[in-house]
Amino acid sequence: MRYKPSDHPVFTLTTGPVDAYPAVLRGLASTVLYDYDPAFQATYQRVAEKLATIVKSETMPVVLHGEPVLALEAAAASLIGRDDVVLNLVSGVYSKGFEGWAARSGAKVIELAVPYDKVIDPADVARALAAHPEVTVVAACHHDTPSGTINPVADIGREVARHGAVFLVDAVSSFGGMAVDAASAHVDLFVTGPNKCLGCPPGLSILGVSNKAWAKMKANPNAPRASILSILDWEEAWRHDKPFPFTPSVAEINGLEAAIDLYLAEGPERVWARHDLTARACRAGIAAMGLAIWPAEERFASPTATAVKIPAGIDEAALRAEIRARYGVVLSSGRGETLGKLTRIGHMGPTAQPLYAIVALTALGGALSALGHKVDVGAGVAAALAVIDAA
Amino acid sequence: MRYKPSDHPVFTLTTGPVDAYPAVLRGLASTVLYDYDPAFQATYQRVAEKLATIVKSETMPVVLHGEPVLALEAAAASLIGRDDVVLNLVSGVYSKGFEGWAARSGAKVIELAVPYDKVIDPADVARALAAHPEVTVVAACHHDTPSGTINPVADIGREVARHGAVFLVDAVSSFGGMAVDAASAHVDLFVTGPNKCLGCPPGLSILGVSNKAWAKMKANPNAPRASILSILDWEEAWRHDKPFPFTPSVAEINGLEAAIDLYLAEGPERVWARHDLTARACRAGIAAMGLAIWPAEERFASPTATAVKIPAGIDEAALRAEIRARYGVVLSSGRGETLGKLTRIGHMGPTAQPLYAIVALTALGGALSALGHKVDVGAGVAAALAVIDAA
Amino acid sequence: MRYKPSDHPVFTLTTGPVDAYPAVLRGLASTVLYDYDPAFQATYQRVAEKLATIVKSETMPVVLHGEPVLALEAAAASLIGRDDVVLNLVSGVYSKGFEGWAARSGAKVIELAVPYDKVIDPADVARALAAHPEVTVVAACHHDTPSGTINPVADIGREVARHGAVFLVDAVSSFGGMAVDAASAHVDLFVTGPNKCLGCPPGLSILGVSNKAWAKMKANPNAPRASILSILDWEEAWRHDKPFPFTPSVAEINGLEAAIDLYLAEGPERVWARHDLTARACRAGIAAMGLAIWPAEERFASPTATAVKIPAGIDEAALRAEIRARYGVVLSSGRGETLGKLTRIGHMGPTAQPLYAIVALTALGGALSALGHKVDVGAGVAAALAVIDAA
Amino acid sequence: MRYKPSDHPVFTLTTGPVDAYPAVLRGLASTVLYDYDPAFQATYQRVAEKLATIVKSETMPVVLHGEPVLALEAAAASLIGRDDVVLNLVSGVYSKGFEGWAARSGAKVIELAVPYDKVIDPADVARALAAHPEVTVVAACHHDTPSGTINPVADIGREVARHGAVFLVDAVSSFGGMAVDAASAHVDLFVTGPNKCLGCPPGLSILGVSNKAWAKMKANPNAPRASILSILDWEEAWRHDKPFPFTPSVAEINGLEAAIDLYLAEGPERVWARHDLTARACRAGIAAMGLAIWPAEERFASPTATAVKIPAGIDEAALRAEIRARYGVVLSSGRGETLGKLTRIGHMGPTAQPLYAIVALTALGGALSALGHKVDVGAGVAAALAVIDAA
Repeated sequence: MRYKPSDHPVFTLTTGPVDAYPAVLRGLASTVLYDYDPAFQATYQRVAEKLATIVKSETMPVVLHGEPVLALEAAAASLIGRDDVVLNLVSGVYSKGFEGWAARSGAKVIELAVPYDKVIDPADVARALAAHPEVTVVAACHHDTPSGTINPVADIGREVARHGAVFLVDAVSSFGGMAVDAASAHVDLFVTGPNKCLGCPPGLSILGVSNKAWAKMKANPNAPRASILSILDWEEAWRHDKPFPFTPSVAEINGLEAAIDLYLAEGPERVWARHDLTARACRAGIAAMGLAIWPAEERFASPTATAVKIPAGIDEAALRAEIRARYGVVLSSGRGETLGKLTRIGHMGPTAQPLYAIVALTALGGALSALGHKVDVGAGVAAALAVIDAA
Repeated sequence: MRYKPSDHPVFTLTTGPVDAYPAVLRGLASTVLYDYDPAFQATYQRVAEKLATIVKSETMPVVLHGEPVLALEAAAASLIGRDDVVLNLVSGVYSKGFEGWAARSGAKVIELAVPYDKVIDPADVARALAAHPEVTVVAACHHDTPSGTINPVADIGREVARHGAVFLVDAVSSFGGMAVDAASAHVDLFVTGPNKCLGCPPGLSILGVSNKAWAKMKANPNAPRASILSILDWEEAWRHDKPFPFTPSVAEINGLEAAIDLYLAEGPERVWARHDLTARACRAGIAAMGLAIWPAEERFASPTATAVKIPAGIDEAALRAEIRARYGVVLSSGRGETLGKLTRIGHMGPTAQPLYAIVALTALGGALSALGHKVDVGAGVAAALAVIDAA
Repeated sequence: MRYKPSDHPVFTLTTGPVDAYPAVLRGLASTVLYDYDPAFQATYQRVAEKLATIVKSETMPVVLHGEPVLALEAAAASLIGRDDVVLNLVSGVYSKGFEGWAARSGAKVIELAVPYDKVIDPADVARALAAHPEVTVVAACHHDTPSGTINPVADIGREVARHGAVFLVDAVSSFGGMAVDAASAHVDLFVTGPNKCLGCPPGLSILGVSNKAWAKMKANPNAPRASILSILDWEEAWRHDKPFPFTPSVAEINGLEAAIDLYLAEGPERVWARHDLTARACRAGIAAMGLAIWPAEERFASPTATAVKIPAGIDEAALRAEIRARYGVVLSSGRGETLGKLTRIGHMGPTAQPLYAIVALTALGGALSALGHKVDVGAGVAAALAVIDAA
Repeated sequence: MRYKPSDHPVFTLTTGPVDAYPAVLRGLASTVLYDYDPAFQATYQRVAEKLATIVKSETMPVVLHGEPVLALEAAAASLIGRDDVVLNLVSGVYSKGFEGWAARSGAKVIELAVPYDKVIDPADVARALAAHPEVTVVAACHHDTPSGTINPVADIGREVARHGAVFLVDAVSSFGGMAVDAASAHVDLFVTGPNKCLGCPPGLSILGVSNKAWAKMKANPNAPRASILSILDWEEAWRHDKPFPFTPSVAEINGLEAAIDLYLAEGPERVWARHDLTARACRAGIAAMGLAIWPAEERFASPTATAVKIPAGIDEAALRAEIRARYGVVLSSGRGETLGKLTRIGHMGPTAQPLYAIVALTALGGALSALGHKVDVGAGVAAALAVIDAA
């Protein structure tokens, strides 16, 4: 029995877009209100207030009405001026990619890079900042998703704060799936989105902004205004009595509220714990099948996505196609430099449940075996189960 | 009995966001697939192909993943280069507003303006183009929504084509509610969205692009690339075997497909007819209540929104608040220069049904009377009904 | 413009099935849990407990898993034994129809009847009970829907209680739309359903049972057991730790919970007020159009449905067909003896909002005029609006 | 990490209620139309016509508006008269349970029974019919769900047809998941429901009726009329121009249409194949873990549910509780005589996908091990995967 490409898959275990929570889908289906209707304005403020409790930024979080690449581009354009010197911490394809947006603003960009299977060492950041007192902005990617690695942003943030620079962090695919927020990581511009670990569809992004970041954006003459790229235009938009710069995505906001409600009802610690356990079980299974994760050390590995190195002789695209055709399971490829070298299993939102690790391991192992790289799926499952049972 | 601001309204008769069709809401609630899953890639291409049948642009329509102000800003940034001379046809707040985006690209902008209760005369366009042979781009707003007026874009398009300029049209709030498409109006960059007459929530925009417009955008060194503002990046994205520049809004695409399916199943002509009839009934009722529409002549009035002049002595915001509190009906205000001067009744998508004109007239008339401007609601309803019955 | 029979109607203003609340529809779309899953068992108990707060029966309400005709048949079969003498209060088609179920149980049925445009006089009930001391069960229909009339069940209940009989009331289409519950009306077996004024789809029924009614059902050797008609089997089923006699309708229970939540959030008094106001506005409009309501006196008229007498020369079926074809509005016919003599406008749940009375009056008046019975729709709307504005 | 009873489960792998297909849930959320609205009447007839293509009864299938126990009780009450002699084929709890309904109609019931882990031998049926020429009705349960066994109804049906009796079959939990229909099994009264392998929630039942069965029901003076138990009342109700005996469950009908559309789009053979493969994989895993299925021979085992014998020393209720608490997986218990002796894994509708067998095996094996009965989960998964990969 094969699943055709046109068949709906059975399991979407990707790094995003992820399968949304059913309650989020029902939220999306709520009656669409006029954005200036007081009932919607109250909803919008309420969503912002709920976000504030989880993003923990100094000021009310800003929602931008496009998926998080909008927020990242907007953040670079708004925060980084022509006179800025940006220390860009490069640990993967996404952090490297940020350089393009940073450079576009006219700033000088200094790169501190590690191989894409490693993470940034806070001590190196301290050294780089000491060597470059002119640095005004430090940019990092918390979870460099194409590598499945997690940078120690809290420790890095401490160095940045000590230096006095503004700290911009892409926490798109980690926020909501592990313990990270704007406050604890000393982040001035915390960029994330609901379409990963919060279990929403793509379409919105979320920004946690410090007072310092607001001041810097306001002082930047090139910060976008009257533009989809403007963050400044939205500063007050969360208030029920303030106008929206343009029409917000009403349905996505309704979905977001459902997602936050689920997150708070379950309890963030509980949500993080199941992301972590799912990833640990997955990694144990990978190892037991004689495969390797992409991150150079297990402590670098993300709790929200597991990147698996592709064994020699296996074509990664063919592998994922086989996994889907044979089992109806969808996994994510690598991107850019990691494309072809790894396959990624997402543990995000509704799929961050330990038994999904079993599903992923079975599908991955079965397809590898079918393609000629024999692995012991039973051993993989047993190892994963041992981790789950020990929790 | 009063409706509190926090109560959900009973009727949302606005000019957008409009009440989405129930089938669209159910579409939004569809399982979220991975964007690179072949089943979603097939969906995306199928949606583009369906859009092509209704947008009627020379090339496959482009979907941008933000509400139509994104598309308008992107269109200006992509199409208009530093060497361009733009003839901007100003008939209202939205067409005037386009000047900002056009000017930002460095182009020279020539304005041909009429009072905001009138529409552009194609003969004036011909004269302006004759006087300004250097004009390379002409921009118009088909339905200048804050005025409820419809510009004769097909006739204007003929003049622009004759001149050889590129024609950019904002048809956001007219497309799908009346006979307008890229082909018949000779439009090179046709900007619209599903969140008005197609009955979707805000979150996407649609562009119909001519070969000439693609060539011009590609020749523009400043046309955005690697940006949320890029149109060029999306040229091939509709193909099931091509990558997306960034993650598309999966749920909104599912909603859009439901909307197009409804539109095609009902038949565009039938859909346009009910928009037109609803608006005509509404205008008849307005007149019979001794009120006036905002457009200087009835033939300027939009079939998708009726702008009603506010009688002397009435505060427009208080009027809408009274309409909502007293009847649970939500109408739209004016914007910019028309703010306070008119109230707008939307006839878009699911509310473009003649009996909604009765609801709107009753609520408007009742609230005006309550605020001291007595009108004969019965006469208004009777006049509207006569139009409906004559159809 | 005509609506075809296959077109979805624009307004469903019927006496049931009614348009469900959007939140109820989303509730129906909730993930279906296994009925013995503890999460569903907890839901089931929670729904019963919420019902208890609104049904106000002595014991926990029973939900039966079919629309209310199931509950009425089950109530007759369970409560009425071969030795019972039933006083059946007949004021319309539904109360008359109950006789069939009562007689089937072998009981003697005494009828106290009034013309179908009048309601039962409690004094007559007192007299009948005095004349028939052998009566053990009294049955009444609170809202005899095919007539749109409301019987004074609280006063009748007082007489029944004095006599010592068991009081069975069909409150299917009144409960949730006006002040009626098991306690205040001294009802022993209170039969209702969520598919009228609570705004759910048909599929469930609700029973409020007194201790006396439970005792009587248990003492009835013919009370159904191991049957879809059993009430007794469900006595304990509301408890999270007790089994279900058969599989409950999981989705409908989820929908019901959403409906109760809406009802409690809005506040029952507020909900009743808008039903009442909608009906009063409707009746004022009917009168102003020179038409008559079916009930002989306005004080008999239901706040949840308005029955309008058909003028001589008008074919009722043709009238409703014209209303639908011309305006997309769906109304209800009469039933049995009232079929052809009246058309009914429902004011139930989401359509119990005053402006829906305007919609109904316009459609009714417009179609009557079109069929040759000219009425002044403007006058009707104005009269209705005056009532709304006075509230 | 433990799942609390109040937590929503992660996987519902039960024998019903099953997890409904997402498209069915969206169908349930469709706008509720008035049952006599022509658009709904057309829907109802269309659903009946689609059902006819899959039920393959001689006459148009009847939908009853309650879950299948209603249809079974109604079938017994309608078909079986006081003069009938019923041969009841007992292979499990459900077929045994039918006796109660059959006996209630006053008929004589002859039992042909096998142990509850075996199935009926058609030769025994032939012998019983030869020995009892007075038999007029034969009743069988195709899938005796509490045992997970499948009776050979096609072969039995041939014997019944030869004898000239009427054949009544409960195919509730097999229809839609394997090759069975009224025609191929020579069934006169084919009872099923959409809430098992078609992936709907419980709330409806479906009857396929032969001409002979209609004639017999019509000739039965005790066949229910004017009752929720009536089948006869619904004979013509499928026609768009015929009345409903009482209000149909509109939302459930909308859900059913979505389910049939999915079933037809995927293709019944494909649907059956994935049920079969899932069950075979499951059984292979059970065996490889050293466990046993309940059916005495594998060829008796159902493709839609796998009943697993509980090892000595394990408490079945505690086992399922552990499976849910540890992994978030919900399985079904036995019922009646099989309660406590087996646990059932459903493969019905959306969960009839091979990888769900892996999920079930892992959860079952893991919990057994945790409770002290050590099994080799890895071996179980490997064996199941081998079956899947061989398909």
